[in-house]
Amino acid sequence: MTALQDAPATVDPAVARVNTWLADFEDALVARDIDRAAGMFATTSFWRDLVSFTWNLTTVEGRDGVTELLQSTLDSTHPHGFHTTETPEEADGVTSAWIAFETAVGRARGHLRLNDEGAFTLLTTLYELKGYEEAAGLDRPKGAEHGANKGRLSWQEKRDHELAELGRTEQPYVLIVGGGQGGIALGARLRQLGVPTIIVDSHARPGDQWRGRYKSLCLHDPVWYDHLPYIDFPKNWPIFAPKDKIGDWLEMYAKVMELNYWGSTTCTSASYDEATGEWTVLVDRDGEQLTLHPKQLVLATGVSGKKRLPAFAGMDIFRGEQQHSSEHPGPQAYADKKVVVIGSNNSAHDICAALWETGADVTMVQRSSTHIVRSDSLMTVALAGLYSEEAVASGMTTQKADMTFASLPYRIMAEFQIPVYDEIRRRDADFYDRLEKAGFMLDYGEDNSGLFMKYLRRGSGYYIDVGASELVANGDIKLKAGVGVERLTEDSVVLTDGTELPADLVVYATGYGSMNGWAADLISQKVADKVGKVWGLGSDTAKDPGPWEGEQRNMWKPTQQEGLWFHGGNLHQSRHYSLYLALQLKARMEGIPTPVYALQEVHHLS
Amino acid sequence: MTALQDAPATVDPAVARVNTWLADFEDALVARDIDRAAGMFATTSFWRDLVSFTWNLTTVEGRDGVTELLQSTLDSTHPHGFHTTETPEEADGVTSAWIAFETAVGRARGHLRLNDEGAFTLLTTLYELKGYEEAAGLDRPKGAEHGANKGRLSWQEKRDHELAELGRTEQPYVLIVGGGQGGIALGARLRQLGVPTIIVDSHARPGDQWRGRYKSLCLHDPVWYDHLPYIDFPKNWPIFAPKDKIGDWLEMYAKVMELNYWGSTTCTSASYDEATGEWTVLVDRDGEQLTLHPKQLVLATGVSGKKRLPAFAGMDIFRGEQQHSSEHPGPQAYADKKVVVIGSNNSAHDICAALWETGADVTMVQRSSTHIVRSDSLMTVALAGLYSEEAVASGMTTQKADMTFASLPYRIMAEFQIPVYDEIRRRDADFYDRLEKAGFMLDYGEDNSGLFMKYLRRGSGYYIDVGASELVANGDIKLKAGVGVERLTEDSVVLTDGTELPADLVVYATGYGSMNGWAADLISQKVADKVGKVWGLGSDTAKDPGPWEGEQRNMWKPTQQEGLWFHGGNLHQSRHYSLYLALQLKARMEGIPTPVYALQEVHHLS
Repeated sequence: MTALQDAPATVDPAVARVNTWLADFEDALVARDIDRAAGMFATTSFWRDLVSFTWNLTTVEGRDGVTELLQSTLDSTHPHGFHTTETPEEADGVTSAWIAFETAVGRARGHLRLNDEGAFTLLTTLYELKGYEEAAGLDRPKGAEHGANKGRLSWQEKRDHELAELGRTEQPYVLIVGGGQGGIALGARLRQLGVPTIIVDSHARPGDQWRGRYKSLCLHDPVWYDHLPYIDFPKNWPIFAPKDKIGDWLEMYAKVMELNYWGSTTCTSASYDEATGEWTVLVDRDGEQLTLHPKQLVLATGVSGKKRLPAFAGMDIFRGEQQHSSEHPGPQAYADKKVVVIGSNNSAHDICAALWETGADVTMVQRSSTHIVRSDSLMTVALAGLYSEEAVASGMTTQKADMTFASLPYRIMAEFQIPVYDEIRRRDADFYDRLEKAGFMLDYGEDNSGLFMKYLRRGSGYYIDVGASELVANGDIKLKAGVGVERLTEDSVVLTDGTELPADLVVYATGYGSMNGWAADLISQKVADKVGKVWGLGSDTAKDPGPWEGEQRNMWKPTQQEGLWFHGGNLHQSRHYSLYLALQLKARMEGIPTPVYALQEVHHLS
Repeated sequence: MTALQDAPATVDPAVARVNTWLADFEDALVARDIDRAAGMFATTSFWRDLVSFTWNLTTVEGRDGVTELLQSTLDSTHPHGFHTTETPEEADGVTSAWIAFETAVGRARGHLRLNDEGAFTLLTTLYELKGYEEAAGLDRPKGAEHGANKGRLSWQEKRDHELAELGRTEQPYVLIVGGGQGGIALGARLRQLGVPTIIVDSHARPGDQWRGRYKSLCLHDPVWYDHLPYIDFPKNWPIFAPKDKIGDWLEMYAKVMELNYWGSTTCTSASYDEATGEWTVLVDRDGEQLTLHPKQLVLATGVSGKKRLPAFAGMDIFRGEQQHSSEHPGPQAYADKKVVVIGSNNSAHDICAALWETGADVTMVQRSSTHIVRSDSLMTVALAGLYSEEAVASGMTTQKADMTFASLPYRIMAEFQIPVYDEIRRRDADFYDRLEKAGFMLDYGEDNSGLFMKYLRRGSGYYIDVGASELVANGDIKLKAGVGVERLTEDSVVLTDGTELPADLVVYATGYGSMNGWAADLISQKVADKVGKVWGLGSDTAKDPGPWEGEQRNMWKPTQQEGLWFHGGNLHQSRHYSLYLALQLKARMEGIPTPVYALQEVHHLS
């Protein structure tokens, strides 16, 4: 193909445009000419920074937002070396480019969209600290120490020493409370960064958080969305992994990634000494009382973990069993029982279906409308472009998918989601009709932006249908919709419309509270209030009051409580955002200055 | 780049040449014109087939060899659809191409080298059976069963059922004896192919085969060479993994790949019923006696596993400890002891170095010359093109590296290896000089073809230097070279030159016997003799007597004993050749005809 290679290259206008913009932007930044730099953004524009400029997770809007951000961060960041990492592309009048650059202390990558006016969206993300690069690829550890050396320790001896001493004679820099996928993903990254870390969890083994749930539970997100850092699920892994299989994976992952995972361990109290910048955390490790002194405390105890129980009259006199959905052991013991499930979101549906399959008499009480999406439709219409076998075949990597996802600012994400769910409504019109005919109250989010926005805003209000909706539609799962619970009697649930439902078991699938409730339990109500509500965007929709935050409240970023962090979310978020949290923690350990721009303000206590 | 794409395409002569050859070859095969097909090969030529034509691992040579192979296999194979899978390349007068085709029952891929006369080398390999494709990628299992279904079992319940019933109420189709990397890799492939399989091993847990060895042991092959099927080591994995870390990886792998792995289990006897085509295998599973009836029995007990002990006068009166190298527990107990190590290959060096590091007084007795290669040189000069971080960065995949390796027939491999080791000798001339000055007897293989040929021919006779040679050169490890052992006294080893070496411990690093010795132990000497020697090429060099075999004797292919197979080798071989063995077993289970061309002949008993 020599002949072709010798032909004169044409200059792609998208390439020229991006290269010019990056060069001009860098010139303005180097000259500390903030007005010029801000003027290169469109009137309506969004700059999302993950830790590279702001040591925070922050989105600023418009030229004023850019100006403010740069005024606070430019001198200390010293950004330079902006360049593209792939050939930019143009579509629908927008030129998109993958970029990279350096800061004074690290290396960063990002994404740029240019419209007629200038930058429409800019994503900037730190991915490594100079001098503290992960030992991987060309820099992976050698393993064997070649040569001979009297008295040297083997890998196993060093590991045994660490297991014996960390938390006793040596203190962890980070303590992660909660060893689900969140704690494990973060622990793996910290291990690679050389940050001494202990993960504690009340369950005996990694993965028990999943194993202990109801037996029919499978992931509702598909495999391509669920990879942990460093080790991908293999190509034969199921699309929707069953809970016990995920449990086994997490257990092996914690082992081969050499995490210091303390099972059967509970934290009984934690307090922070502002003077020494150190936590004192009392833990019960399988009966042994230990005191830990980490500098950083990460609560990874679950976005959906702090159970919220209703207070109905008569709960104290009901003679049957009452469980929060998180405590439901599965249907086995209830084959011939009458069960009332209060709630109509994911857990309520899964639990009702499994009970019906086992032969129980099940009634679902739907108190308010629910957003339902069929799993197949969600995969095909909403996720397939980034997370699917087809995406992988077309060259999409997990990292690129995550970065593409991250490049869309939350403020405008709903706009892009509305057409997706419009399409799903058309596609599944018959399905939704049948549900409505059965009396089920449907919604698609307050602005019709669907499931993912509900997840980001409130973490609730939806069911990804994997089969239960059909049972609701055909009456196999009995439905009482648009009613509340009046009270419980000794053997029944009485609804606000007067219906009395005889019950042997009542399951409260009534959701979860804000994660700062964990801080209240472990540290104090004062600290929980100081930190404020966790999760949500400030979208001013149900369960997500304004003002607008731009990012998810208090997640993966500095809080009003020095040394206290929240980590969690689905497997996608645990994978992607654990990187930014890990870099923030590593920088602090190494004494790298981390001036935080736009520290989280507190508008709501829970 | 539209302008360039519109330019008329030039026809690459290499592409044209390969396409013409493949089309002509297919025409000749479809016409069953064997003379014409054979005439398309060069006078000196090699066709290596792995299971696609021959249901065997076979290399034939020259046009006569091709003719014979096709006469026996063409009608049943029905090969068709030959095409290239990448753009062919030309270098040094040889055109190389990656190809694919189909047979009557499966899909195959391979590699072709054309010289002036025609095909110089052809590699053809089966990779899947039609109708029995692995559930992976686009066809991966769904995991969750969407919909509702009364009484359905969860993944865990099905797995629990299998663990409880297989080997009791249900019989495995395959029994693999030996649960090291070989048994585990094969077990994983059989699992994916739906072949009911049990792996038994005398150690309690997967990986204990590695954990139990001397403490300084690390892999001598680098990480890129060592991946198991399905799950690659992560990018942070050490180049030369320490033994315990490999042990942990194997344990997790067996778990997440859902292998039926019976630890603490020994086979006490096995016999084959020719009439029923079934084995009767008595096993002791942690004290419980069970009888298994597999159709296929795979011995994966280790190429280096059947220890070979010398018979020296006085071994019965020596009062100290005597160990075969495979039994050596590590140096801890011998810090102030006098140790004599008989042998000068890998284990001898590793054990001597670890003993010296611990403070022991160590003497190595070298009875014959040894091939030494420094690990760094081996990585850089011999392996880096296919198995290195640089190779990965340039687009080399594990599969392509394995296939490239496989594409070079064993008959001419030595020719290609000689310059590699010539280069290493130049590079490390000082190192080799120092060793010789210390009296160490060096060789580079009988034909100077170096380490890998020694490995393939005899599996011994070398040390990959990771530090011990320096101790030999500088006298820290004492050396007695060119002598034999005359006898042992109560407290010493007396050499053939009259030297008497006082000893508290004698380690016999004297190597291993042929794997058919396992068959003698487990089944009978008669069956061991019927099968004959395992491993080696028939190169007519030391410990590998002729005649020339073309492939490794009895490995991964049918033996003279119906239903008896040998599997093993290093991690590379365990990964790559487990595919062909798994396909042979699966085909037999499904009743697909598997006419074996050129069944292994027996020329040597051990």
